[in-house]
Amino acid sequence: MATARDRILEVSEELFRRQGITGTGLKQILEQAHAPFGSLYHHFPGGKNELAAVTIERAGAHYAALVAASLGDPGDDAPGRLRRSFEGAAETLRTTDYADACPIETVALEVASTDEELRQATARVFDSWTEQLMAWLAGAGVPAEVRRDLALTILSALEGAFVLARATRAPDAVLAAGQAMERLLDAALRSNATAVDR
Amino acid sequence: MATARDRILEVSEELFRRQGITGTGLKQILEQAHAPFGSLYHHFPGGKNELAAVTIERAGAHYAALVAASLGDPGDDAPGRLRRSFEGAAETLRTTDYADACPIETVALEVASTDEELRQATARVFDSWTEQLMAWLAGAGVPAEVRRDLALTILSALEGAFVLARATRAPDAVLAAGQAMERLLDAALRSNATAVDR
Repeated sequence: MATARDRILEVSEELFRRQGITGTGLKQILEQAHAPFGSLYHHFPGGKNELAAVTIERAGAHYAALVAASLGDPGDDAPGRLRRSFEGAAETLRTTDYADACPIETVALEVASTDEELRQATARVFDSWTEQLMAWLAGAGVPAEVRRDLALTILSALEGAFVLARATRAPDAVLAAGQAMERLLDAALRSNATAVDR
Repeated sequence: MATARDRILEVSEELFRRQGITGTGLKQILEQAHAPFGSLYHHFPGGKNELAAVTIERAGAHYAALVAASLGDPGDDAPGRLRRSFEGAAETLRTTDYADACPIETVALEVASTDEELRQATARVFDSWTEQLMAWLAGAGVPAEVRRDLALTILSALEGAFVLARATRAPDAVLAAGQAMERLLDAALRSNATAVDR
């Protein structure tokens, strides 16, 4: 059975993803986690900020695993796999009433200019996702010199499309971005093939 | 001289952009606007929600004008102009300590699943920006059938790159996305030229 600490973190991750950190009260977290008030400061002596930092790190690892499973091995059709993973994200948005997108995006914007410690926690997560994507692109055969820019572009397109999709309650931006990223990756692989052929 | 209403709206726009809506108290807005407490409900009988709705609409129009000025007329190097407008956004981020990005992005994520009226206000702004970009792409010569998807992709890449840039305090994602959007637009224009040539 999940411990009180686990339950608190699970509920935090869910609520931060849907309504951000400033919009989420400790009372709401503890109630939904069926945890007594004392358990919060027992497990997180630093209070809401410590809870937020651990939640961001945990959400980052969860989402990395989800993206890895969705992308799978680059195989021989990495561009198609990339597009399908955007399609999967669009489907998740549709089935969760446009609530479940990136678990740290709302929090990242809220803390960017207001809480340096939490900003750094979100930066570490985005950096780890960028490195994860770079490794996947390396496996797909993307030349080293363009991997980081392509990974940053793919992650940007996904995160931005999440904003548009959640605001407009339509998957269009996620699907359009997925097709565009497929074309960009395809072009990066072709330019590499051309370079090798020469 | 600016009226109390104008000052309240200006301060709201600034604070919402930097710290979101749930993190911004009415007291902070009124203090920075040098406006008496009574003036809020005088000008915005609906309170914070009405103020937020008007601020979102106003910020949408402001940013549309800024983007239009940054993009300029498509001219004969639309892809280069698009890239340079991302470079301009990156420079603004750097000079404002990574605070001034999209004026409604933080708010859009905060309200997406929690306030239907404000969600619709953010959706109207994103839709208007999408149409603005589509018109610019039309002027650049992008075929009608790909204009909306390309506009959604460009807007997504910009919004997502803002998230990464603000979190990591680095312009890299904005610059990478700008170069990628330049290539996508260039490819869209070339495929059109090819279609015309045939």
